[in-house]
Amino acid sequence: MATIFEKIINREIPAYIVYEDDLVISFLDISQVTQGHTLVVPKEPYKDIYEMPENILGHTMKIVSKVSKACKEVFEIEGLNILSNNGAYAGQTVYHFHFHVLPRFIDDGVSMKFPNHMNDMTIAEYKKRALMIKEALL
Amino acid sequence: MATIFEKIINREIPAYIVYEDDLVISFLDISQVTQGHTLVVPKEPYKDIYEMPENILGHTMKIVSKVSKACKEVFEIEGLNILSNNGAYAGQTVYHFHFHVLPRFIDDGVSMKFPNHMNDMTIAEYKKRALMIKEALL
Repeated sequence: MATIFEKIINREIPAYIVYEDDLVISFLDISQVTQGHTLVVPKEPYKDIYEMPENILGHTMKIVSKVSKACKEVFEIEGLNILSNNGAYAGQTVYHFHFHVLPRFIDDGVSMKFPNHMNDMTIAEYKKRALMIKEALL
Repeated sequence: MATIFEKIINREIPAYIVYEDDLVISFLDISQVTQGHTLVVPKEPYKDIYEMPENILGHTMKIVSKVSKACKEVFEIEGLNILSNNGAYAGQTVYHFHFHVLPRFIDDGVSMKFPNHMNDMTIAEYKKRALMIKEALL
């Protein structure tokens, strides 16, 4: 089952494309959460970060960097978020890996709330979590 | 003026480090927004995405990918966000470029709201925005 991104890559449905090469395509997010909100998408339909080969991921991020600089150059931005959502619970709606480049403006209506658990944490719990990740990285 | 990340890199203040190599360091975010919330940070103090050299950015993203896989392996995650905030208005609080790896869980208290402007947009406006970015990328 092809996602909307594959249909865009195959020119089956239109999109406002800003960049394309052999490996990656970049186009405006139709929702335009903010002015210039752009997606950067590998052409191969890797589902999420866990499936992305390192070389394709590196190239995709290079284009994210270029699109970020372009947005800074052409819009009067106040900031910029780079975001990748993996899994429905993280807000992924298209199951084809992508980065959002999201320019930020004053009163742009975007809201991100992150609870701070510093005061709930014990040193033992920090150590345990860090050790679990560290060991999985070996 | 050294940021807190430089002090962590120089071992002037402690952190729960999960990974380190010549170019990149990764440690738990002290706020632990969610279980396993980890930062991946280039050792050189590039301020933001606009200052990041492509090769360092690619390597940093490779480690983001590895940390993401590690978090998926060791925690019972429901999803995972990768996030970079550039500029105060985008939520950047430490002016040393970094990625957040943010595992997601049911009822984790994280909230991200993105207004959808699809119904406000004209085709002319989409075309204009896409063309501005496209030309800046040439």
